[in-house]
Amino acid sequence: MRIRKSVEELDPYVPGEQPKDRSVIKLNTNENPYLPSPLVKKALESFDPEFLRKYPDPVFTELRARIAEIHGTVPERVFIGNGSDEVLSLACRAFVENDEAIGSFDPSYSLYKTLAAIRAVSFVPSPLAPGFAWSDPVVKGADGKDVALFLLTNPNAPTSVQYPKENIAEFASRFRGVVLVDEAYGDFAPYSCADLAAAPDNRNLIVMRTLSKSFSLAGLRFGYCIGPADLVEALYKVKDSYNVDAVAQAVALAALYDLQWMRGNAAKICRTRDDFAAKLRARGWDVPKSSSNFVFARPPARPGVDAHERARAIFEQLKGRHIYVRYFRGPETGDRLRVTIGTDSDMESLLCALDEIEPARA
Amino acid sequence: MRIRKSVEELDPYVPGEQPKDRSVIKLNTNENPYLPSPLVKKALESFDPEFLRKYPDPVFTELRARIAEIHGTVPERVFIGNGSDEVLSLACRAFVENDEAIGSFDPSYSLYKTLAAIRAVSFVPSPLAPGFAWSDPVVKGADGKDVALFLLTNPNAPTSVQYPKENIAEFASRFRGVVLVDEAYGDFAPYSCADLAAAPDNRNLIVMRTLSKSFSLAGLRFGYCIGPADLVEALYKVKDSYNVDAVAQAVALAALYDLQWMRGNAAKICRTRDDFAAKLRARGWDVPKSSSNFVFARPPARPGVDAHERARAIFEQLKGRHIYVRYFRGPETGDRLRVTIGTDSDMESLLCALDEIEPARA
Repeated sequence: MRIRKSVEELDPYVPGEQPKDRSVIKLNTNENPYLPSPLVKKALESFDPEFLRKYPDPVFTELRARIAEIHGTVPERVFIGNGSDEVLSLACRAFVENDEAIGSFDPSYSLYKTLAAIRAVSFVPSPLAPGFAWSDPVVKGADGKDVALFLLTNPNAPTSVQYPKENIAEFASRFRGVVLVDEAYGDFAPYSCADLAAAPDNRNLIVMRTLSKSFSLAGLRFGYCIGPADLVEALYKVKDSYNVDAVAQAVALAALYDLQWMRGNAAKICRTRDDFAAKLRARGWDVPKSSSNFVFARPPARPGVDAHERARAIFEQLKGRHIYVRYFRGPETGDRLRVTIGTDSDMESLLCALDEIEPARA
Repeated sequence: MRIRKSVEELDPYVPGEQPKDRSVIKLNTNENPYLPSPLVKKALESFDPEFLRKYPDPVFTELRARIAEIHGTVPERVFIGNGSDEVLSLACRAFVENDEAIGSFDPSYSLYKTLAAIRAVSFVPSPLAPGFAWSDPVVKGADGKDVALFLLTNPNAPTSVQYPKENIAEFASRFRGVVLVDEAYGDFAPYSCADLAAAPDNRNLIVMRTLSKSFSLAGLRFGYCIGPADLVEALYKVKDSYNVDAVAQAVALAALYDLQWMRGNAAKICRTRDDFAAKLRARGWDVPKSSSNFVFARPPARPGVDAHERARAIFEQLKGRHIYVRYFRGPETGDRLRVTIGTDSDMESLLCALDEIEPARA
């Protein structure tokens, strides 16, 4: 007794480093390099402490109306969480029996596997096609467990690649469980599955969004999803009564009324991204087409040097120069670096550092 | 598939009403009638949006140091949650196996039963002694399941009564599972079990606190607990990476550096409470000695009127006069009203309304 066995055995999820040193160029956790809307600052300054004294709105009346308006749906189909991490955790509790499994592509957001471990159910990884492309998901584990919840980051992380919408729609139409499409990076991508989630005949597809990336609000913890009303209701049943505080609600509402600010920043980041990817490719790197605010890039091969060791070494050398990017061990990921798109100047600094680490061959 | 069976069958927890009408005298959800510390307003006004752009500190370095200082312990023994509701939910996941049970006194915080249902494990209620007094907890359910986590609100809600510390210490010393003492109302009570939780040889007792009540920050969602380092570590393993946002961290830190403000408000509330309880007793009500910011009071009996119907009718009549208190159906609770302590003027209005509803007999 005391600590649950599955928790004692748990490898906790390790988020990217958050160095205190403000001189670091931080391209490791997909944060937005630009500040949130000025309406956010205003919402904080004008917040009436009377609304701190009382409990917040547990059902997010104003926010759900605004989010429904943005996505052309109704408030009954909108759920709001304390960050989309909370939405994920609640989905694992609401949609998966103890003897069922959670699935996702591999590689994908490494938290998914940890969520299955916390929920003490099987995790079923699905391999991708070459180039990190779509491949039909595996819906039964080697242990015979059925996948009841498939977590699908799109565009995917850390690969940056967006899957075709037709594939997702087709998969959902024949899948018995719930498909949760995590569009954390959706505002940097050419298309969204939100209309599939809002469709009247949709019975099992949920699309999730966060304000952490495109809205520059990683510090806030605000995520939401839209989907069939009965699935949304199930999420409300299992959440804490007051899962999003009154200040966060006011700040999120302000940000969601300034889509223009968010879109301006997202457009800047996409331009910087495409320019940076071209410059990496010009240096011989393999950079899959990114639909997100990061790239997943493989350094050019070096004869006699292991590709994984090479990526890892560049990661460490950049860190020594106070430039933080992200390195994920593993057979599918360990020969690459995931680089968040910062300002143009951040990316120039990174390219200069790379050129110092590896001078162009004569 | 799609929705988990236990979730479909779930009776969700129903929090007290949050009327939009600001003219309502709101004595139904144990909120504090006084504003939070002025340092809170300052923290909001001066918050740098740069810290919204980035992820918040996932391990609460500053906050844990401050909380450890307050309770005379070390940061390794401090866990922080998005409201103490989240701490409870995480404890249910970290300390209870699928074939074990969660226990609490009955009556107590009605959320506990819902948490067991969400966790899909048995719930074992323990009856109290007369006068809502301590009685040794039941640690095995009728279904043979062992209680692995006993949730103990102290002072208890909705009864308002505080149990003797010796009883709690003695129970914990021989209980194999985890005892979580929820001291949501601890700042209104004569003593605390925090020193038991901080004791070096404590292996299974956790004391939880919230800023919702005494700190006037129900809108914020900030709870914490102290306990053995290995139990605290287990909670960190199962939480979302960034469960408390950057603004909430800054606001909570400000409040925790102004204990004097909190204590001043708590003292005022205790004075109002004792005065109000005396006035109710003078009107023939039964009011157990409260160690919290509410009373749990039974109206004087009326020949020929069912005590439960009577309490319910007074609740409704008060509501008709825009005074909200709380009514809990049930054999142990249905003949009483739970009344949050507001300002002196709130309580005078309530007493006037009661005198109108039931004029003194000639």
